Amino acid sequence: MPYSADVRSVLGRLRRIESSKVFQTTVITIIILSALTIGAKTYDLPPLVEQTLQFLDSAITVFFLLEIIFRFAVFPDKKRFLLDGWNLFDTIVVIGSLIPLDNSDAVLLGRLLRVFRVLRLVSVVPELRFLINSLLKAIPRMGYIALLMFIIFYIYAAMGSLFFTSINEELWGDVAIAMLTLFRVATFEDWTDVMYETMTVYPISWLYYVTFIFLTAFVFLNMMIGVILEVMSAEQNSREAEQAHQERDDMARKLDEVQQQLNGLTEMLNSRLPGPADEQHQQER
Amino acid sequence: MPYSADVRSVLGRLRRIESSKVFQTTVITIIILSALTIGAKTYDLPPLVEQTLQFLDSAITVFFLLEIIFRFAVFPDKKRFLLDGWNLFDTIVVIGSLIPLDNSDAVLLGRLLRVFRVLRLVSVVPELRFLINSLLKAIPRMGYIALLMFIIFYIYAAMGSLFFTSINEELWGDVAIAMLTLFRVATFEDWTDVMYETMTVYPISWLYYVTFIFLTAFVFLNMMIGVILEVMSAEQNSREAEQAHQERDDMARKLDEVQQQLNGLTEMLNSRLPGPADEQHQQER
Amino acid sequence: MPYSADVRSVLGRLRRIESSKVFQTTVITIIILSALTIGAKTYDLPPLVEQTLQFLDSAITVFFLLEIIFRFAVFPDKKRFLLDGWNLFDTIVVIGSLIPLDNSDAVLLGRLLRVFRVLRLVSVVPELRFLINSLLKAIPRMGYIALLMFIIFYIYAAMGSLFFTSINEELWGDVAIAMLTLFRVATFEDWTDVMYETMTVYPISWLYYVTFIFLTAFVFLNMMIGVILEVMSAEQNSREAEQAHQERDDMARKLDEVQQQLNGLTEMLNSRLPGPADEQHQQER
Amino acid sequence: MPYSADVRSVLGRLRRIESSKVFQTTVITIIILSALTIGAKTYDLPPLVEQTLQFLDSAITVFFLLEIIFRFAVFPDKKRFLLDGWNLFDTIVVIGSLIPLDNSDAVLLGRLLRVFRVLRLVSVVPELRFLINSLLKAIPRMGYIALLMFIIFYIYAAMGSLFFTSINEELWGDVAIAMLTLFRVATFEDWTDVMYETMTVYPISWLYYVTFIFLTAFVFLNMMIGVILEVMSAEQNSREAEQAHQERDDMARKLDEVQQQLNGLTEMLNSRLPGPADEQHQQER
Repeated sequence: MPYSADVRSVLGRLRRIESSKVFQTTVITIIILSALTIGAKTYDLPPLVEQTLQFLDSAITVFFLLEIIFRFAVFPDKKRFLLDGWNLFDTIVVIGSLIPLDNSDAVLLGRLLRVFRVLRLVSVVPELRFLINSLLKAIPRMGYIALLMFIIFYIYAAMGSLFFTSINEELWGDVAIAMLTLFRVATFEDWTDVMYETMTVYPISWLYYVTFIFLTAFVFLNMMIGVILEVMSAEQNSREAEQAHQERDDMARKLDEVQQQLNGLTEMLNSRLPGPADEQHQQER
Repeated sequence: MPYSADVRSVLGRLRRIESSKVFQTTVITIIILSALTIGAKTYDLPPLVEQTLQFLDSAITVFFLLEIIFRFAVFPDKKRFLLDGWNLFDTIVVIGSLIPLDNSDAVLLGRLLRVFRVLRLVSVVPELRFLINSLLKAIPRMGYIALLMFIIFYIYAAMGSLFFTSINEELWGDVAIAMLTLFRVATFEDWTDVMYETMTVYPISWLYYVTFIFLTAFVFLNMMIGVILEVMSAEQNSREAEQAHQERDDMARKLDEVQQQLNGLTEMLNSRLPGPADEQHQQER
Repeated sequence: MPYSADVRSVLGRLRRIESSKVFQTTVITIIILSALTIGAKTYDLPPLVEQTLQFLDSAITVFFLLEIIFRFAVFPDKKRFLLDGWNLFDTIVVIGSLIPLDNSDAVLLGRLLRVFRVLRLVSVVPELRFLINSLLKAIPRMGYIALLMFIIFYIYAAMGSLFFTSINEELWGDVAIAMLTLFRVATFEDWTDVMYETMTVYPISWLYYVTFIFLTAFVFLNMMIGVILEVMSAEQNSREAEQAHQERDDMARKLDEVQQQLNGLTEMLNSRLPGPADEQHQQER
Repeated sequence: MPYSADVRSVLGRLRRIESSKVFQTTVITIIILSALTIGAKTYDLPPLVEQTLQFLDSAITVFFLLEIIFRFAVFPDKKRFLLDGWNLFDTIVVIGSLIPLDNSDAVLLGRLLRVFRVLRLVSVVPELRFLINSLLKAIPRMGYIALLMFIIFYIYAAMGSLFFTSINEELWGDVAIAMLTLFRVATFEDWTDVMYETMTVYPISWLYYVTFIFLTAFVFLNMMIGVILEVMSAEQNSREAEQAHQERDDMARKLDEVQQQLNGLTEMLNSRLPGPADEQHQQER
């Protein structure tokens, strides 16, 4: 036992504090306050408010540092603390916030990490954590469809930069830029401007855009349907397992009772009736 | 009893009037007329028509006032009249319409409340009221997903106003303006114009837009699927409860009859057959 | 009997012709040819081709006229011929095509009716007719949601033309123009241009656009879900009625047989066993 | 037997090589390498890298040629090799790559066929092949709806080029160009610009655009729902066939047992009980 009884009693008390409603609410409030200070900094503010925000920022940084140390202290298996994705994320964000903001080089990185503090809301509110986990679970399902989509984009981008580079360097300069242009076409964003430009040189190039839009829309539609179906069938299976089975079980139980009654009847008749002629035949069944 | 017999008979008659088809149709007609006068006012009209509309407007205001007084009179529990959301809404709209339109300060508010009279159509037609109620019910379900969406918007807006303020003050000036710009990007509205502008300074900033579009589209898709599933499972449950249950009940009833027949048979055999040898064993079952 | 035997035999043969594959294919071919001539006329063509098209057009008009007369001749109940929507539509299109194209006043109407000839494809191909019928069936279901959508549009349009008329007469001049502008906003078409313009006068007016987009998107989403659900439940009901019922019927039949067997057994025992003690009690069940 | 034992043993070994993980992975790696070289060529590169890419391109061409010869060699029924769509596609792409790139006339075609090499990824990875096959299967289902969509486009395009040609030759010049313009309207791409232009001449023409958008959106929505339903019902049928049937079969089996027990009972009673009075009546059932 690495801990003495005193330490353990302290730990137990700390753990109770950590899982208490008051502690959770405090952390959530501080995170929202932190989000507000980040937002407030984007406005032009009088010096006094600026200084208050500066102070608030330091206070929040200290609070988050203490909180993560506290959470680490009450974590049962210290070595596995960082293996949990949410803990790792929280630790990086908090340590990143320690970068002093007057250091001109790292000032943007420090500010960025302060922005990501808002994401800590997700790691603290269980419902949001659950939501994110279930969204992450939906990604692998779509893996091969995403790969197919990428292949379509890549082929069209290669064709586009092959034919259209001379027409507009900015849109079709190389494969990467062409893929960005195609992403724009896929969102229908001023895609006709892009098309009319290339149609002056290649009048048939409308075929390129229309087939691309049809292909991506068609594959995307199937992607969406695939996800809906998978989620739905999972949902239905669990529902069916709960409700319908029960009813069928009721019927099966009743049928069992009928069979038992019949067995009892047969047994009784066998024992009471006179002629034992085909008793054997009966038992063979 | 607070009312005398006379008053009660009058109330009963009024209530019958209120729930009559004729009364309902009259109110709906007046509301549509009111909507038309609101629309007509937005056109340039000859003075005579203007005056007719002015008179019509006053007449409709008086009618609505009388109608709400009448509805209040026949309402069983006076104290709870305003606790019903629809009544509260109707009352505010009607009282608001009493603001005289020649008072230049409140003229816009008075006009606005006249516009909202059209919404009274919703409170009067039961099917629309039912529809709105079911739409309102759908909102809380999406609560946490909406919160997640807001967090994504907020983080991207904070990042955007951190990096891009110097590029375009009008689009990225502060967090609120940046969120509006991001809403525009989420609707694909000229989002490439916004992107190309920031890409002149930060060439990598396309990543910011593409990840944002993917994230919001992905979360929105899941939101939509979530709602579809929830509505569908509710629908199916009620349908199953109606139809399938009935059939299963039929079968269960038939099985019960079979069991009763068997019981009757066993009883009869017990009483008529000679040997009472294992009668006890039979009864134990 | 209004027809002599000769006439009836002729009618029978005509009817066999009308429902024959060859006749159907001919009509479809002529319609497609008619569609192609309409399309061809929109190009600049040499005079010879123009004249050929002119001749082809007259020939097609005559063919359609003969066809509709023929279809009328073989129709069993002459008086109800025009009561069928498809026949009425065909007749109007064909009669409209008789307007001579050199009459300068009606030339556009005549041309328009020639365009609608393509729609005759729908009335001739049974699968398309079935499709259109099922699409038409889907409209009333959405009645109240469409009404709700109209109310939202109307209120926002009235508000828009109340506040924004002075900003841009072309977009917010009156209620009708404002509704068109809002339809544009609902399709996300350059809606930010509209918004930025009004935000210069009313900085808060972004709220107007954002709430409008949310409301219409939300109601539209529910509309879509509603239709999906209704079609799906109809689909499922018919499927269930076919498949599952059959299985349940099998089981119900088997249970009936069991009951009959038990009845037979009871009857037999009643007649053969000695003690008639509780025979009455048995029959009362 | 056309092959000697030696040849057959070689073939067997080759076939084992073809279906081995190592071979598959090598081919996939080469294809991805080929895709990267295609992409790389769209950038401005130093001469040395250009030459390396040139060499790599030749090496990949040779490899693909050898691979297709190898696959042909191990194919059991040589005559049907090209009847398989995937093999045909691979062969065309590989043979096309043999066109020398210094031939200035065919250089674009040769480059294009090199781009299509990326599609070979689909023909090699089984999951992608399965995906494409299932997407292809979804096309015929939508046949009639696509035809209906085409008819709507055609009629509106004919009307558009009838009325609007004089307004804007570039958008409404002939039926084909008008259909492209309508496709643009259907994607909501700057459709109001098109509309406002025609509204200056025909103020009522907004009706043309709004009805077109409603029709296409409505038909498209139904198309989508149709596909979702068809995929879903196929999914559900197979699921039901697996799970629910089994449970019902269990019940049916139990009922059969009950009937057999009853038959046994009746038989036994018949043979043992004294009075054969209504034995005949019993057998008639």
